[in-house]
Amino acid sequence: MANDQPPRPSRRGFLKAGSAAVAAGASLGATGVAQAALGKTPAHAADPTMAVEPFYGLHQGGIVTPQQSHTYVAALDLTTEKRDDVIALLRAWTNAAARMTQGSTAAPLPPADAANTAANTTDAANANGTYDAASNKGAPDSGDVLGLGPCGLTITFGFGPGLFTHEGKDRYGLASRRPAALVDLPRFNGDQLIAEKTGGDLFIQACANDQQVAFHAVRQLSRLANGVATMRWGQSGFLSGPRGQTPRNLMGFKDGTNNPSTAKPQLMNEFIWAGATPDAPWMEGGTYTVFRRIRITLEHWDNTEVDFQEQVFGRHKYSGAPIGKKNEFDPVDLTEEDKDGNPVIPENSHVRLSNQASNNGAQILRRSYSYNEGTNFYIERWPPWRQETEYDAGLIFLAHQSDPRKGFIPINDKLAKFDMMNQFTTHVGSAVFAVPPGAKPGSYIGAGLFET
Amino acid sequence: MANDQPPRPSRRGFLKAGSAAVAAGASLGATGVAQAALGKTPAHAADPTMAVEPFYGLHQGGIVTPQQSHTYVAALDLTTEKRDDVIALLRAWTNAAARMTQGSTAAPLPPADAANTAANTTDAANANGTYDAASNKGAPDSGDVLGLGPCGLTITFGFGPGLFTHEGKDRYGLASRRPAALVDLPRFNGDQLIAEKTGGDLFIQACANDQQVAFHAVRQLSRLANGVATMRWGQSGFLSGPRGQTPRNLMGFKDGTNNPSTAKPQLMNEFIWAGATPDAPWMEGGTYTVFRRIRITLEHWDNTEVDFQEQVFGRHKYSGAPIGKKNEFDPVDLTEEDKDGNPVIPENSHVRLSNQASNNGAQILRRSYSYNEGTNFYIERWPPWRQETEYDAGLIFLAHQSDPRKGFIPINDKLAKFDMMNQFTTHVGSAVFAVPPGAKPGSYIGAGLFET
Ligand code: HEM
Ligand code: HEM
Repeated sequence: MANDQPPRPSRRGFLKAGSAAVAAGASLGATGVAQAALGKTPAHAADPTMAVEPFYGLHQGGIVTPQQSHTYVAALDLTTEKRDDVIALLRAWTNAAARMTQGSTAAPLPPADAANTAANTTDAANANGTYDAASNKGAPDSGDVLGLGPCGLTITFGFGPGLFTHEGKDRYGLASRRPAALVDLPRFNGDQLIAEKTGGDLFIQACANDQQVAFHAVRQLSRLANGVATMRWGQSGFLSGPRGQTPRNLMGFKDGTNNPSTAKPQLMNEFIWAGATPDAPWMEGGTYTVFRRIRITLEHWDNTEVDFQEQVFGRHKYSGAPIGKKNEFDPVDLTEEDKDGNPVIPENSHVRLSNQASNNGAQILRRSYSYNEGTNFYIERWPPWRQETEYDAGLIFLAHQSDPRKGFIPINDKLAKFDMMNQFTTHVGSAVFAVPPGAKPGSYIGAGLFET
Repeated sequence: MANDQPPRPSRRGFLKAGSAAVAAGASLGATGVAQAALGKTPAHAADPTMAVEPFYGLHQGGIVTPQQSHTYVAALDLTTEKRDDVIALLRAWTNAAARMTQGSTAAPLPPADAANTAANTTDAANANGTYDAASNKGAPDSGDVLGLGPCGLTITFGFGPGLFTHEGKDRYGLASRRPAALVDLPRFNGDQLIAEKTGGDLFIQACANDQQVAFHAVRQLSRLANGVATMRWGQSGFLSGPRGQTPRNLMGFKDGTNNPSTAKPQLMNEFIWAGATPDAPWMEGGTYTVFRRIRITLEHWDNTEVDFQEQVFGRHKYSGAPIGKKNEFDPVDLTEEDKDGNPVIPENSHVRLSNQASNNGAQILRRSYSYNEGTNFYIERWPPWRQETEYDAGLIFLAHQSDPRKGFIPINDKLAKFDMMNQFTTHVGSAVFAVPPGAKPGSYIGAGLFET
């Protein structure tokens, strides 16, 4: 039987554009607007599937990168006892991630040669219809994104507390190198965390302008971890926005407006990038990332009036402007009062409580996505007795900061207690990670932690 | 306090293109290829967010419509005892669906008038931070897709067995009008159906070139059902394809190649559209839709070699060609043998078992999507004892046919018993619906069932 398959296709059937302008142009959100304003390619100019983001560099991608339209985030738990295994994994991840972000498969595909013809295996497969996993290394890549283009893929790796100490044990000789800023998050008022959606020793955030490309990256990386680490949780997220505008979240509000501008290096250095602290010099140029899975009771929210919804956020729904203002980017003025002397932006509104003026000047870089995992069926046996299907949808909250003790923790402490939005939201997953700086070509993500 | 918000934006900030060519150009998959081959606008010519599909017509949209990139499918259970409530719901759904497919909100948004200013509600909201659902009609539309464009949205409604009889009762006087073709699906070998992901009295399939636009449609429709029907299950799906090519599913294979061509009305009339059978003349121009939620153990699949994977499907992975052939659209020849006299396309391969030649000529129109709902954590207490996180990802199998007794049922009966793919797949959800013909403007979906 003849087997003359055409040569294997690559993911990149295009002239490599590889410029920051293409990348910026392909992305969504307020940061994209900022970049466009700086005179770069306007946000609608490029095909988002063609965008290429650099992998190597001072910082990892996916932090100040203008937000792509999709993400898949995952956490893994280390099962190995060997420091060398962890290093080998980080090396393999670095190489595969560098390939994939540039539009390639995780590993080279086999040539379309005789070894791969059907004739060689027909009998074996027909004989019993099963395969022997042990004698089988598997395909080099799942192949499900062949032809899709790089899609602006970024892959960001992070280290959870469990890499440093695990059940009181210093598995890899790293306990003394744990950054003080990598705290265990406290319990917040109202938290309903599900253990299997919380924590993790290693973090992967893949963002891309295509859902399958983002998932594909995590899927290949998680497979490379076979025998060394296992998946703890993973989840898919998306943003729908007219390109170049701030996307609306599932509550219908523009989300991301009042982020610190990634176009201002000074702001990024102050609030987002970690410095070379004495306890963790290897974190210089990295950041700390907080993940929260926040379910939103959309059914409940949809039964409220628009003007009430605006009070909850402290912003107008359609324009995105602060209450009483006209334009989305008008400044939030917390001192304004109405004719009766009441604050125009309510005391318990989301933006007042989270604004830097209410938090000793603290700022975080939110880079969140919506999620939509169908429906949950739940039964409550306590009155009012009910048995109901609810949307399992909400926000994958992701925020980067130089120190969570000054960023997420105090802000969320306040929100968890007073935010009017809480009656519609439940935090069901949570994690915090030290996200090391970028790697140099030839090195690997986290080298500074292991080798200096 | 002044409130001078700009006028409410509409979803349609574009010149209405509204042509079939635009719609076809914006879509994915083999049918798109077929249309392009017929000399219509090539598949990459148009902005997929601008595509508009007609709502009214002989057939409902979303059946032979070239596949959009996303779907949200849902089933609802009727809770009312009144026939008039069901009719009123279908009327409301028809109107809202017609609006949304053309790029509008589900209902008109209120004008940006004084009644909507913050000043009127600041005190009330501040006072207790809660709202009274009973005294509150809620927002007319969740507003989360403002500015996103129509995105080729189609909305398809279907009727489950429970509309006709429910726990032996003829709630709405429709029992005698149940089509014989709307059978209860039998149990298939290996079925592991979850009750809360199975069945349903009413079906909504929303397909669009944007994930949030598809979900938005179901969310508004499900809200219109308040007091009459409740959500039973819902789930989101996607297809990633280089536009104009057959998209690859999560197993990495091109999926949809050997569908009957929607460009051939004769094929559609024979296999897809229901005729005017004596038991259900109102179904003429409709179809029967089978939904299956099929989980794929990707972890397991990824550990198999490409050549084994090809044996499972009976097709080459990269090209999509039948085994031994070169091109994706080369015909599947089940009679070919290798030099030892074994069939080139294995006996227990997916395409051999499902091909029309193995099923008395039966054909169905598959219009499936991938799904990806993060991860499941499961515990098995039976040896080999394990506690593991697995992907909750797979295929939302959707197939249309003129009669499931000749289409899905016999084909799946065979597949469920013999398909090599079964060791990687589990059917966890299932439903079957009678999808009535399209509505005329002024009428409503299902009018023929209630009024003739
Ligand atoms: C479901 C959960 C959440 C939703 C839907 C949500 C949505 C929003 C929206 C619509 C805005 C206004 C637009 C903007 O400036 O981006 C906003 C602002 C903000 N949110 Fe959230 N948010 C959520 C959770 C959180 C959490 C958990 C935190 C941090 C602990 C947070 C921190 C902030 C901050 C710092 C701002 C900017 C406030 C300002 O300076 O004006 N949000 N959020
Ligand atoms: C996870 C589940 C499934 C996957 C991943 C899958 C995938 C595929 C693929 C890759 C092909 C070959 C390309 C094509 O012609 O479209 C195919 C063909 C086909 N499948 Fe499936 N399939 C699944 C379940 C089913 C089920 C449940 C049925 C029906 C009961 C079905 C019916 C068919 C038919 C009729 C064909 C065309 C065969 C031919 O005539 O060549 N599939 N499927």
